[in-house]
Amino acid sequence: MNYSIIFKVIGTLLIINGGFMMTSIPFSLYYGEGDIMDIIYSGIISASVGLLLRVLAPKSSNTELKRKDGYLIVALGWISMSFLGSLPYIFSGAIPDLASAFFETMSGFSTTGATVLSDIEAVPKGILYWRSLTQWIGGMGIIVLAVAILPLLGIGGMQLFVAEAPGISPDKLQPRIKETAKRLWIIYLGLTVLDFLLLWIGGMTFYDAINHSFTSMASGGFSTKNASLAYYTSPFIHYVLIVFMFLAGTNFTMLYFGLHGNFKKIISNEEFRFYAILCVAAGLLIGTIIYTMGHGTYEKSVRDSLFQVISIITTTGYVIYDYTGWTPLITVLFFLFMFAGASAGSTAGGVKLVRHILLIKTAVLEFKRLIHPNAVIPVRYNGKTVSGDITFNVLAFIMIYILIFCIGFLIVSAFGIDFVTSIGAVAATLGNVGPAIGGVGPMDNFGHLPGAVKWVLSFLMLLGRLELFTIMILFTPYFWKKF
Amino acid sequence: MNYSIIFKVIGTLLIINGGFMMTSIPFSLYYGEGDIMDIIYSGIISASVGLLLRVLAPKSSNTELKRKDGYLIVALGWISMSFLGSLPYIFSGAIPDLASAFFETMSGFSTTGATVLSDIEAVPKGILYWRSLTQWIGGMGIIVLAVAILPLLGIGGMQLFVAEAPGISPDKLQPRIKETAKRLWIIYLGLTVLDFLLLWIGGMTFYDAINHSFTSMASGGFSTKNASLAYYTSPFIHYVLIVFMFLAGTNFTMLYFGLHGNFKKIISNEEFRFYAILCVAAGLLIGTIIYTMGHGTYEKSVRDSLFQVISIITTTGYVIYDYTGWTPLITVLFFLFMFAGASAGSTAGGVKLVRHILLIKTAVLEFKRLIHPNAVIPVRYNGKTVSGDITFNVLAFIMIYILIFCIGFLIVSAFGIDFVTSIGAVAATLGNVGPAIGGVGPMDNFGHLPGAVKWVLSFLMLLGRLELFTIMILFTPYFWKKF
Repeated sequence: MNYSIIFKVIGTLLIINGGFMMTSIPFSLYYGEGDIMDIIYSGIISASVGLLLRVLAPKSSNTELKRKDGYLIVALGWISMSFLGSLPYIFSGAIPDLASAFFETMSGFSTTGATVLSDIEAVPKGILYWRSLTQWIGGMGIIVLAVAILPLLGIGGMQLFVAEAPGISPDKLQPRIKETAKRLWIIYLGLTVLDFLLLWIGGMTFYDAINHSFTSMASGGFSTKNASLAYYTSPFIHYVLIVFMFLAGTNFTMLYFGLHGNFKKIISNEEFRFYAILCVAAGLLIGTIIYTMGHGTYEKSVRDSLFQVISIITTTGYVIYDYTGWTPLITVLFFLFMFAGASAGSTAGGVKLVRHILLIKTAVLEFKRLIHPNAVIPVRYNGKTVSGDITFNVLAFIMIYILIFCIGFLIVSAFGIDFVTSIGAVAATLGNVGPAIGGVGPMDNFGHLPGAVKWVLSFLMLLGRLELFTIMILFTPYFWKKF
Repeated sequence: MNYSIIFKVIGTLLIINGGFMMTSIPFSLYYGEGDIMDIIYSGIISASVGLLLRVLAPKSSNTELKRKDGYLIVALGWISMSFLGSLPYIFSGAIPDLASAFFETMSGFSTTGATVLSDIEAVPKGILYWRSLTQWIGGMGIIVLAVAILPLLGIGGMQLFVAEAPGISPDKLQPRIKETAKRLWIIYLGLTVLDFLLLWIGGMTFYDAINHSFTSMASGGFSTKNASLAYYTSPFIHYVLIVFMFLAGTNFTMLYFGLHGNFKKIISNEEFRFYAILCVAAGLLIGTIIYTMGHGTYEKSVRDSLFQVISIITTTGYVIYDYTGWTPLITVLFFLFMFAGASAGSTAGGVKLVRHILLIKTAVLEFKRLIHPNAVIPVRYNGKTVSGDITFNVLAFIMIYILIFCIGFLIVSAFGIDFVTSIGAVAATLGNVGPAIGGVGPMDNFGHLPGAVKWVLSFLMLLGRLELFTIMILFTPYFWKKF
């Protein structure tokens, strides 16, 4: 393990974390709700810990990063930022206990959007801005991870999901990451600015527009309003968010192609087609059902349905209607959407649609194999043959996802939480969705759960966000064995 | 397709079916509840349809059976027997509508044990005997299928589960089946007789002992009592059933080894060890929890827990306590047990433990592969290397199981059935368990569900019983393509 670099990278992340915190200062000053010193102290502590780590880093001239170092950096980065990122909540008293504050911060950095706050509007604006910012930072982190780093770590078939995977040796992290990262961040930043402007024009305050542009582009879902996006009745605002949530759930390399006018590449991408069709079909189906139930005009029914469907499929988690209050079918659909997870290489969490596509293709092929036991029939994706290794990778990912889901379900229910609330809470945190069903449904929050359950759910958010393997592997003996 | 043989085999099955029905006559006569003519007519109709099929069978001298013929015989056999087996319910008026009567019969032949009857004790004894007998027949069918036929059909890795798989070409069904079948039936019959004697000695009436020996050895779960096995308070009876349910959930080739004194082979079998440990561990865990809740003495707590746990893990489905009424953890545990499915090659339904074992081993190996991307590390089971094909087969099976589960969940909820009832009904029918959770929990029955839902659930029972592929493959274009 190259601890020298690991210390330095984590140190740098915490310094950047502190710097980001400081950007809350203007809002604290402007709104003057007494949170300014809480933020400054938090920022200084985070940056100081970061500096300390850099100073304490063991000296070494070895600059080579191996796979194992990569796993450790990613895991420790997310965890350390979540611990230090919870300081503003604790210092300001907005969320006084560590379990809840850590939950809220992990929910931010993992772009989940589950909240422990019952009265969001009572929280000082500087703190609330930090809350939205954690999601935006998390989203920025994940697009780089998903497109540039995880494929190199060989995680869950992610090699496949990169449209232009750099030709690299699988055992070393390459400098090419920097280039890719820069490109993607420019897209991310550009879309956030556009999102902000449209929301502002649409009638949100400057402050709310910033916050919601952060949390929509990150597929995060934190809102500054108690009623979430139901607070806004403007169809324009809802349409803007429908578009930007959808974009945030699109593979960022597709967006890159789009910006370069290469729409053919987008249309021919199987995952994108599946994603678009799923969103529209589910939006129309549920829209039609609620229309027949007297929800309003057909346009409003489909709009509200599309908003809510895309919000859950992209794992954003904004709420404009209680989707558990319509019919059992709609509740079950939304529950199952929590396992969808939009596109790989986007800011969305969850399983990711490409894995579902490969799963279905594999299942169909299995029938062909039964009839022709000796035929070798490979899975094809985007016109290319998928290697057996990658298919296997994907199946293993989904299996481990389900195993973790079941274990989480058992643990949460062991704390006396009822069946539906337990299954919903686990689905929504592991899938980085946010709101769930039952006692943690769209009209509720996670505040009432016991502290221990919050730690468990925070861990699930981390697992889900980092594609399971990145974290799970740290718990295997293989990882710590020396060679 | 060799329609000549297919017609003849199905015809023979229906004649046998009619013959089995006639064995209800003594009970109808003895109890004199007016069901005798209903049974005789049903038996005659079933046998006549069978005869007709044999007469109408296209003439052909081709005696070769191919894989495709195998699938079709298995599927059509179960379906046709379920249709004709529902006649006694309809004629006697015990279950007047076809959807419910078919559900009950499929629940019998698939050894599921879900019932639409709310007042079981009001049904004439001859009919009730037939109901138990359908499970016993289904159990007899499935051990032969699982041990002798499905492996030849290459289904879901079943090749692996046979301890002494005959060396055969994968494309033709071999006469060796007959031999294997005879051996297994003798074990099945012998254990049923022993089970019956012990239950009779234990205090059940002659009639009840016969019925419960049928439904316990078949992992079925139909009872002749409204209160299911809670009707009996005798610890002896409960212990007898604990043992026989456990044996019924054991791979029958293991039982064969046991009868020949080869216990080493049993102990060294990974699935058997896992099965035994799971049952005992879950029994102790839940027993201890309910003991602390004041269930009674520790012996009673563990006994009741063991009974209920083994009843669900083996997919039998007897009920002595409302397992959804203790704590959320226990409810979730029982829900998850519905996906366990005891041993392959037993009368139990569901996923089967060997598949879970391979799944877990594959998942663990995946982490090893991440660290050593170029190493080739095979899965091992019972000391032997498992081919990649079979591992893949197993993963595909579990994936398809989950896909069907989700689709079933959606369809059932679309009929307005609530979340917990829908998820429970699908888990318990697809897994051939019987009682579920929610509105179809251990204290309820399936009678109140709409007719359409009963058809859907009947189909799920069939799918689950025949290891999914046998039925699903009939819906693929590959099956019907000519070569």
